[in-house]
Amino acid sequence: MARWEPDARGRLARVALDLYAERGFEQTTVGDIAERAGVTERTFFRYFADKREVLFDGSTMLRDALVDAIASAPASLGPIEVVGHAFGQAADTLQERREHAVRRAAVVAANTSLQERELLKMASLAEAAATALRARGVEASVATLAAEAGAAAFRIAFDSWVADPHPTDLHAAVLAVLGDLRAVVAGT
Amino acid sequence: MARWEPDARGRLARVALDLYAERGFEQTTVGDIAERAGVTERTFFRYFADKREVLFDGSTMLRDALVDAIASAPASLGPIEVVGHAFGQAADTLQERREHAVRRAAVVAANTSLQERELLKMASLAEAAATALRARGVEASVATLAAEAGAAAFRIAFDSWVADPHPTDLHAAVLAVLGDLRAVVAGT
Repeated sequence: MARWEPDARGRLARVALDLYAERGFEQTTVGDIAERAGVTERTFFRYFADKREVLFDGSTMLRDALVDAIASAPASLGPIEVVGHAFGQAADTLQERREHAVRRAAVVAANTSLQERELLKMASLAEAAATALRARGVEASVATLAAEAGAAAFRIAFDSWVADPHPTDLHAAVLAVLGDLRAVVAGT
Repeated sequence: MARWEPDARGRLARVALDLYAERGFEQTTVGDIAERAGVTERTFFRYFADKREVLFDGSTMLRDALVDAIASAPASLGPIEVVGHAFGQAADTLQERREHAVRRAAVVAANTSLQERELLKMASLAEAAATALRARGVEASVATLAAEAGAAAFRIAFDSWVADPHPTDLHAAVLAVLGDLRAVVAGT
């Protein structure tokens, strides 16, 4: 078998999601995924550390969108405005992949170990945002709080968006939840 | 061996933390824990589902403290005030167990699968708080946001508290972080 596989990574990710949705995550082996993708198990492990990681291939893209948006936000914006802008930009990267996001969310919701991994990825997203804010000169504890607020708004908006049969714009939803959070935390 | 073990559960939890701190989590087996605690592996599994769960035995107590405090908070308090009060009460249950909390935090920080479990427990704590708020008549989305804000404040205050060689009162720290969050989200 040739070592070079045209888009083997993308194909493995698509096939894995198909199989997890059809048979369940626990019932699917790396061998099953590799076989349907037409590659060896060895090829699978060249791209993904394990059966869980294949579902989190998009998280790097999400983090990059977030960090880039924070770094390039106008200097005039305050920390929470930067965070709203940046999580909104991250939301934009998901907007066109909604069908995938919905199927993936159903697979994750059905398995505790996937939920745990999802939470870890979300925590590392918040951490990346906080680090990027600090690099703009935002004070450390303010950066942490702004990043946590943004991540919470993103997660809540995302959960509604994947559950909604008539979804609206995810970017706008993130900003709306952040506004609601402001009102709730202020006690107004 | 007698089936009845005086405080086998507490002894297993203490011994497990000792061994994880000494040898590392990965390097410790359930057999090692059971042996040092003077019970059989079967006894271990009577109390804990796996090697990770033994570190999360306190999370039920934390959740109960939180849910009780929300249920019994004065009717005059708004959602975010109830949340501050309740996560403060949960903090009080940790205050006297600081030495344990510090050693446990170091073990969790050293292992990805433990960090994941910790995040899942924290997410279920936020969910329990949101459910308890709804039971008080708080609107669903407000309950979710207030609970998430409280959980974020609790987590941030807790992380500083275990890292601080001269820690202050955890309850007060939770309320202070919640106040900081209010200012940051308001952009003031």
